[in-house]
Parts: sequence; C-alpha cells; structure tokens
Amino acid sequence: MKIDSIDFFYLSMPVVEDIGDGSQDALLVRVAAGGHVGYGECEAAPLPSIAALICPMSHSACKPVQSSVLGAKLDTPADIRRIGDQVRANSLDLLQAEHTLSGIDMALWDLLGRKLGEPAWKLLGWARAFPKTPYSSVLFGDTPQQTLEKARAARAKGFHAAKFGWGPFGHGSVQADEEQLAAAREGLGQDGVLLVDAGTVWNTDVERARRVLPALQRVHAAWLEEPFVSGALDEYRALSLDSGEVGLAGGEGSHNFFMARHMIDHAGLKYVQIDAGRIGGISVAKDVADYAAAKGVTYVNHTFTSHLALSASLQPYAGLQAHEICEYPAEPKQLALDITRDHLLPDGNGQVNVPERQGLGMEVNLEGLRPYLVDTEIRVKGRTFYRTPQL
Amino acid sequence: MKIDSIDFFYLSMPVVEDIGDGSQDALLVRVAAGGHVGYGECEAAPLPSIAALICPMSHSACKPVQSSVLGAKLDTPADIRRIGDQVRANSLDLLQAEHTLSGIDMALWDLLGRKLGEPAWKLLGWARAFPKTPYSSVLFGDTPQQTLEKARAARAKGFHAAKFGWGPFGHGSVQADEEQLAAAREGLGQDGVLLVDAGTVWNTDVERARRVLPALQRVHAAWLEEPFVSGALDEYRALSLDSGEVGLAGGEGSHNFFMARHMIDHAGLKYVQIDAGRIGGISVAKDVADYAAAKGVTYVNHTFTSHLALSASLQPYAGLQAHEICEYPAEPKQLALDITRDHLLPDGNGQVNVPERQGLGMEVNLEGLRPYLVDTEIRVKGRTFYRTPQL
Repeated sequence: MKIDSIDFFYLSMPVVEDIGDGSQDALLVRVAAGGHVGYGECEAAPLPSIAALICPMSHSACKPVQSSVLGAKLDTPADIRRIGDQVRANSLDLLQAEHTLSGIDMALWDLLGRKLGEPAWKLLGWARAFPKTPYSSVLFGDTPQQTLEKARAARAKGFHAAKFGWGPFGHGSVQADEEQLAAAREGLGQDGVLLVDAGTVWNTDVERARRVLPALQRVHAAWLEEPFVSGALDEYRALSLDSGEVGLAGGEGSHNFFMARHMIDHAGLKYVQIDAGRIGGISVAKDVADYAAAKGVTYVNHTFTSHLALSASLQPYAGLQAHEICEYPAEPKQLALDITRDHLLPDGNGQVNVPERQGLGMEVNLEGLRPYLVDTEIRVKGRTFYRTPQL
Repeated sequence: MKIDSIDFFYLSMPVVEDIGDGSQDALLVRVAAGGHVGYGECEAAPLPSIAALICPMSHSACKPVQSSVLGAKLDTPADIRRIGDQVRANSLDLLQAEHTLSGIDMALWDLLGRKLGEPAWKLLGWARAFPKTPYSSVLFGDTPQQTLEKARAARAKGFHAAKFGWGPFGHGSVQADEEQLAAAREGLGQDGVLLVDAGTVWNTDVERARRVLPALQRVHAAWLEEPFVSGALDEYRALSLDSGEVGLAGGEGSHNFFMARHMIDHAGLKYVQIDAGRIGGISVAKDVADYAAAKGVTYVNHTFTSHLALSASLQPYAGLQAHEICEYPAEPKQLALDITRDHLLPDGNGQVNVPERQGLGMEVNLEGLRPYLVDTEIRVKGRTFYRTPQL
C-alpha cells in the first residue's frame, strides 16, 4: 500500500479552562492507505501540530511532516519505523514535528493492524498482552476536603490505585501539601496505592521538593511524579537519594527516545512514564519500554485523554507482565469519552485489558465528534495549506 | 514598561530549495514596550512558531506563548528571565514554544538595551566584549572540485577558518568523504583551520562515523560537528574516545538548558554549539556559556542566517575571551543579508566585533523586507488568530 491521505481533526470542548486537564481538546489523526483507515491522537497543542504537518519547507532538514509520510510505502512494521526515521531526519529542525508524528505513528499501527488482521501489540512483537492494573488519575481538589471526596470516589468506583496531581499541590506551603496528602490517603484507605504528581511545580528546586518527602513517606506514597521539569537529571538523581520508599517517576515530557533514555540512565527513576502521543508514537514508546525493562526501570503509560490514546499507550508494553500499572483517565471531559464508541473498562478483577482486536481495537465515533470540531484554516501566500477536513 | 505588542514576520526567498541552507526563510520578531522597539529572530520553522505564539489554550500548561509575554513588566534583565520562566511553565506541553520564545527573548534584550542605553552583553553581566575569530560556514560542494573552489574562495575572502558541512558528506562511501575532506584542506591551505559538519548524517551509527576519523585526522580537522543527532550522548562519547586531535562539536539541536547541559556533561564534547534562536534565546544561551566555561568546554555560537541573529548569538559569550571562535554565515541568501542595514564585517585583523551599540546594535531594514514577506493568515472558529502584520 501507499499512504493516500492524512487528516488532522482539531477537537475542543466549548470552553477550555485554565486548569491542568489535558482532555479539554484533542487532535485526532486519520490516515488512509489502500482502502484501509487508521486513527491516532497527538497529545499536543492542536494548532502548532497542524502547522508542523503542512507548513512550507524551510530547508532540507526542516520540512513539513506530511512530506515524509504521504505516498510512503506501508506494508510491514518496518515501513512504519522507516517513516518515523524519515520524519525525524527531514524535520530535524522542526521542533513540533515529534508531537505531530506521534498521532500519525499510532494511526499507522492501527491501519496496518487492520490490514493484516492483527492487534498492534502483536505486530510490535509481543506474544501476548497482559492485563494492567489501572490507577485513577485525577487532579488534586482545590481544598483537602475536595481531595478527600475525590479519593473516596475513586475507591467507590473500584480503583485500588489513584494518582493525585497538579491543582494547588506544591504552589503553597509545605503544610498545605501535607494536608492534601493526608486527605488523599484518608479517602483512599490505608490499603490503596497512592501516587502523587507534582506536575513539575518545583522546576529545579531540590530543597523545596525535599521538604515534602517526609509527608510523602508518612502517607506511603508509592511514587512522586515530576517534581522537576523533564531533563533536570541531576536534580532528579539528587532527590532520589533521599526519597526512600517513595520512587521517583517522570519522563512524560520526553519527545524522543534519547530524552527517555537519559531519564532512565541518569535520573534515578523507579518508573519511566511515556506518552506515546508525544514521544513519536507507539514505535518509539516500544523502544523505550524495551530499554526500561533491560535497565530495571518500570515502564508506565502516560495518558490523560481518550480511550483511543489509552489503547495506543498500552501497546508498547502490553507484553511486559511485571510492568503492570497503567494510568487510566478517570475524569476526562466528555470530548475524550466521545472520541470512541467503545471504552476500555476495568474487568471483574479491576484490571484493564489491552484489546485483542485488530490495530488499536477501538472504533472512532466520527459522527459524534461533529459538535467538537474546531473550524480551522491556514492560508499562506493566498493558498489554503490547511482547512478542517470533513468528518 | 509593559510589553505592548509582539509581531512575527514570516519572510522567505521566492524559491526554497531542498538543500541544507537555513537562510532561505526567516522569522523576524518585533516587540514593543513603553515606546521602544526590539528585534529578534527565531531559527525555526516560521508557520509552526507563529502557531505556537497565538494558538488557543489547550490547558494550564499548554498556553500560547504570547499569553506569558503580552502585558508583562519589562524594566530589568531579571524581568526578561522571569518572562522566559513563565513561558516554559505555561507552555510546558507546547513543544514548539522554545523556538518561538527564542526570537522574543532576543527582542527583549534588544529592547531593554535600547531603553537603558547599553549593549545587551553588558546587561548580561559582561564587563567587555572580546573580538571573535570567524569561520566561514559553507556547504560542501556537490563534487570535491566544487568544495576545493569554495575553500579557495573562503581564503580569498580573508577567512583563516572554514567549516564545510551537509551536502553529499556522509551519504555515500567513506572514500567519497575522504575526497571531499582532501579537497577542503587543499583549498584552505595547510595553515587554515578546517572544521567539518556531518549534519547528523550518521544518526547513531558510531561505526560509520569511526571510519571517517582517519581521514579527518589526516587533514587535521579541528572538529567534527554533529556526527549524530543531538541527545545521542552515549554515541558521542564513544566516538570521542577515538577521535584524538579531532574534537567533537555539537549541541545546536538543544532547545533548553538541560539538553545543552547533558551534551556538556555526557557527550565528550570539546565544543558546544548553541543556537540562541532555538534554545530559548540569549538568556538560556548565556546560562549555557557560563556552564560550558565552568566545565572546560568551549562555547561556540551556531548561526547560519542574518546579522541580527549573528549579533544575538555573540552576546551570550561576548565576555569569554578564550572562547574565541565564532560561526559566521558566509554564503547566506540575500534575504538574510537584507534583514539588517548594517553588517558585522571582519575587521583589519579578520576578527568580528560584538557591537558596542545599544541592545543588539543592529538596525533592521523593515522597508527592504517587503518583497520577502509571506502573507499568512490563521483562522480558528471564524476568528482571525494571526494575520501578517504591517511592516
């Protein structure tokens, strides 16, 4: 087959709030080849990602992403990897390109899986897909009382594990953080798995982060995620030396294999979190999963949006039985739920199963997305470079 | 002062060729505050960088760059750094943001310098600016004969140092590379400083790179630049162990301080090359220059475009006397030359002097840019988010 078309759909809730909730908009990708269609999703700012797809060439290493994809041969998994390599070479100086590529790469695995009648994880080389233990991923409440209620709600929904992040955490006093943590633990119960996401709030301030460690240890948090910005390797490592039972987690900001490798090699991580919608897609995420497993670091998906993105995020480590935790978007906006007709609901054991169906195994609900479609047009030199395609 | 406006001008040659010449288009940035104006330039794909400036917010850490800049206070150098920190926090998940910020940061130093009547390098804390020894930066010819002629031309223009890069180098046989290198050396003369830029052609293939080392050593190349993609720390380090007198150079792909720090700490570099138009501007580049100096790695600017970008690229290490080499765009397209009225020409000693004038010390030639202006319009939900501003 040859790749015939790439369509990017910018979707959004009617109102986007100034909160740490990445499910308020979405960039859905549709790729067609040889009469087959595949879908993916960039976890990225939609407009700059669209611009990276279609912009005029600046020079030989700064080309629009589509120039390396349209017309390319697609018959085998190796073809998908070659396309990714082409994008990285031809768009080397186009920073946004790796976010744009991510959704395309997912769509290629979905498409090829449908063509070959196999789930994507099988094409990736896994013999079987092991179920994952989902954690409910929610924002801290504005008050400890709200956090307490959110934690109770997570338990009531059957989640054994829950992650609290962003919101006021880390922005105020250490005492305020302690009260939030205590509320989360109380609501979750003593036997629940409590995960905490600082959302890079301390930037590179190791001392400030260190002051929260005693409270994290007191509530037996299993991990502290993103105390610092991605890439602050020395700061991560310094904190890891004092964090005891609280493992450090990070890596979601990685937008290529190397950044994830550096986090694994140099940051003292216990968990590496990879967003397949940012790192260049399922292909690169799979490489990171293999590398993490070899280095004794636990791979975890990073997913905060739709069940299409969730399925894609599970494929890279579907076959790693011991890497069993998975992020599960627990309070996404309606848009994220409406992207697919089917959803990856926890089974009777409270576990999430990677679909056994072809490709990513999810049915995109195009008609249902009409109300969310953001009409967008980009014109350069009087010519239309992008216009929102028909759903 | 408060920042009143940010204007992005997308400029382009009439025809952009599929060659490794980054001077074929440009993204000029104008910032106004308190009746003053400053200019900068993103070394970046124009359309995605414009989109990152003005796109709708996706969530609290994925905001358009302008939301952290417009209306911000600008009275001191610390204000510029605070604005950069705000952009990095508020646009954390917007990959292209750091390229967009780069041109804005330059414009802020230019503007503040004009307001305070000081050159930017003085505001950065340097007591004086030392002259730099420019190297002529050109592409390898398609044939060894063309490279020979280019090298002779560089000498004839008075350059003592020249860098050859991209083109066919590394794409064919090792013997073809050897012939190119021999031609460059012959044209430059035995006493010239020969630098070689592989343009990431070997990606991560250490063995292939290693096979060119003997030829590089034979022609006494002072450095081998970017044998691998930025971030391939282990591969760089492995090659550095065998490269002998040929120092490794790299880092231009860094789009934040950490990436440059990792290259300095882990890649076995002798030279770290920073493009102020990509890394987040002059502010971040200055931090890297300080860090490199402390670690015994030589800082070099990366500049392939206009003399506005050239001046900006020299400010961060103006005061580092021992770091005396500078990249000098020797065969830019006419567009790049037309961006400024004045140019940083080598003095009687063949050296380039960082301007002593206010700000970046360059006068932008707005009227002369009219023929290059790329008419661009971005509409979202029926509203114009961007339209090419008046020059």
